[in-house]
Amino acid sequence: MNIAVAQSGGPTCAINASLLGIVKEALKSPEIDAIFGSVNGIEGIIKNELVNLKDLVKTSEDMALLGQTPSTVLGSCRYKLPTVEENEQIYKTITDCFDRHNIKAFFYIGGNDSMDTVNKLSAYYKKIGMDIKVIGVPKTIDNDLCETDHTPGFGSAAKYVATTLQEIVCDSSVYNIKSVTIVEIMGRHAGWLAASSALLHAVGLKAPHLIYLPECKFSIDQFLNDVDQKLKQYKSVIIAVSEGINLGINQKAEVHGADGFGHVALSGVGKQLEKLVEEKFSVKVRSIELNVLQRCASHISSLTDITEAESIGSAAVAAALNGQTGKMMTFRRVSDAPYTLTIEATDTANVANKEKNFPKEWINDEGNNVKDDALPYFLPLIQGEQKLKIENGLPVHFKIDNILD
Amino acid sequence: MNIAVAQSGGPTCAINASLLGIVKEALKSPEIDAIFGSVNGIEGIIKNELVNLKDLVKTSEDMALLGQTPSTVLGSCRYKLPTVEENEQIYKTITDCFDRHNIKAFFYIGGNDSMDTVNKLSAYYKKIGMDIKVIGVPKTIDNDLCETDHTPGFGSAAKYVATTLQEIVCDSSVYNIKSVTIVEIMGRHAGWLAASSALLHAVGLKAPHLIYLPECKFSIDQFLNDVDQKLKQYKSVIIAVSEGINLGINQKAEVHGADGFGHVALSGVGKQLEKLVEEKFSVKVRSIELNVLQRCASHISSLTDITEAESIGSAAVAAALNGQTGKMMTFRRVSDAPYTLTIEATDTANVANKEKNFPKEWINDEGNNVKDDALPYFLPLIQGEQKLKIENGLPVHFKIDNILD
Repeated sequence: MNIAVAQSGGPTCAINASLLGIVKEALKSPEIDAIFGSVNGIEGIIKNELVNLKDLVKTSEDMALLGQTPSTVLGSCRYKLPTVEENEQIYKTITDCFDRHNIKAFFYIGGNDSMDTVNKLSAYYKKIGMDIKVIGVPKTIDNDLCETDHTPGFGSAAKYVATTLQEIVCDSSVYNIKSVTIVEIMGRHAGWLAASSALLHAVGLKAPHLIYLPECKFSIDQFLNDVDQKLKQYKSVIIAVSEGINLGINQKAEVHGADGFGHVALSGVGKQLEKLVEEKFSVKVRSIELNVLQRCASHISSLTDITEAESIGSAAVAAALNGQTGKMMTFRRVSDAPYTLTIEATDTANVANKEKNFPKEWINDEGNNVKDDALPYFLPLIQGEQKLKIENGLPVHFKIDNILD
Repeated sequence: MNIAVAQSGGPTCAINASLLGIVKEALKSPEIDAIFGSVNGIEGIIKNELVNLKDLVKTSEDMALLGQTPSTVLGSCRYKLPTVEENEQIYKTITDCFDRHNIKAFFYIGGNDSMDTVNKLSAYYKKIGMDIKVIGVPKTIDNDLCETDHTPGFGSAAKYVATTLQEIVCDSSVYNIKSVTIVEIMGRHAGWLAASSALLHAVGLKAPHLIYLPECKFSIDQFLNDVDQKLKQYKSVIIAVSEGINLGINQKAEVHGADGFGHVALSGVGKQLEKLVEEKFSVKVRSIELNVLQRCASHISSLTDITEAESIGSAAVAAALNGQTGKMMTFRRVSDAPYTLTIEATDTANVANKEKNFPKEWINDEGNNVKDDALPYFLPLIQGEQKLKIENGLPVHFKIDNILD
């Protein structure tokens, strides 16, 4: 039998490590012959665009490079699989591809949208009685998947956020003046990644002095009051804010260039808060958007995250060979210290299209910071660094010709 | 005799390494007794705010941490020393501080403004016949100081830019759609750091497909034409742009929030170019501002840069003990491969208030990219990585109590 694997959704540092885990486990499994990689997520199955991963990931060096390469070497997609009722033909097209290549198990590395695909596809094969296993492997820097302690990709993103924020603290405090620095962190609905900035408290810093998450109602008056309080206490006030907070005003800002053309653009919350602070206080204000760097900075990935991402990929192959389907692999945390995990599986119906928010009990009463109670959760996830292969002073990346060009 | 050292101007990853070099060399010099650190640049001398560095930097661990800490542990300033004619009193205040503490040599780590201070102060002591040596130690991520092959801090910034850009390339190419990604890089007048993004060409990447520097006249029509050409050739077009390019339009943009308040803010060129591309082409467009991270990301600093920064600090102490004053220490490159440097000194008058631009001969004829001829210059500067001391998953930083709080 052959297997296929695809990567979907937004980039993280750990998606290729999960691919590596799948490839390694498949190579160890005598019942698996070819390992196909689907180009651009499930779209590669639909368009019959497959690559032979055994030809591409051969040496131990290939494997090491795959593990240190961010994003998705197979490409990605944002494809929403219709229901069978909406479009049965697409299911037949997918099945044709699986049949043509004798693919008996399909692994989809992705977030909650991808788990919806796994859910629908596995249900379809159960219904029509075809023996094709479909297993989901979680990934997202947002850490918002249900049923799993955390998601691969989150630990590396949190390590980047905390490392970078610690450097921003050094950068922002050098002049003998009052200042406010606002750092905008990804997370549209769930504040896990912005909350992880509280890791600085674990190394003795007071920063971030304020943390705002989408889980709390945001009030501009309260925000300005908070800043006022902190400016009385600290020279350089550092604020971490999730991109997903709702300012309660229309966040669309119209930008007029002096040449007269007008545009409407969604200005980030960091920039908006910068303006609010600038208007109210006579201090230096700066906003910093961590942007895509927080999801792709594999040069400072968490070794724990990368190792776990590989393990959960391997476990997915073992689960499929064990007869499971319609499952997403999960982490269950046995203990914080010593940090111990087991890998389990949950029905994708428990995960698909659902979101897990940052726990209210880890947010302080004022709703403007994260309690130290959350630190034992975050800390194990950012431990360790990869030994990177570096050439010409730059990390070497794994690349499959013609896919990402 | 005692010495004093101060740090000035914007942060880099290497300023504390130069401080370390000064401290180490002073510790080795029997004629030097106390090593004072001036808090917040020359302002600490004026206000008599000094710390005793022998008490603060004691162990080999202190030294290792100092070398891996970004920004300025002594704080910084943007103080412009008036001429003697304008304000002789300030020179007397400075001299009082030096006298009170028996300071016979003062080391100023900074950019071209700081070299102006070194120039004025050393000329003053020559004129009044006082034996106080004043030596400048260069630093700036902008690499725009004359008379030196490059500046400490630049190599680490270039390594950050290239490392990050390589990751952005992975991030931006995952979907099967046309896209343009614009990365805004620091450099108000000189394009060295934006030009260093061409390091990606040394590892076989076509990106950045376009590089715009302040050294070339910028035309919006030509820019849109360039993007059009590149979109025909590549799926994911990557553009590096120096913050200092002149768009030829008023770069002030008026931002109206929907709550009715209006602000005027200097929108970055990256954002402005994003809007131009968005208006003209039906492709996904994103702009990324590397912001302060490019000057403080010591977790990915260049070992070559940090080592050289320490050496040039040490050489400054040796020069002062050798009787020199009114000098800035410089690097002279003997050869690219093997990369060989000597440390020399130049009169600060040759450096103060001057800027060195990126060479025209390293820019392509179209003025929209950097020639491979520049790569042998850039490559040695980003080689090597520091072995960081890490605790709790985060690099450990050196900190002097109460200075930056």
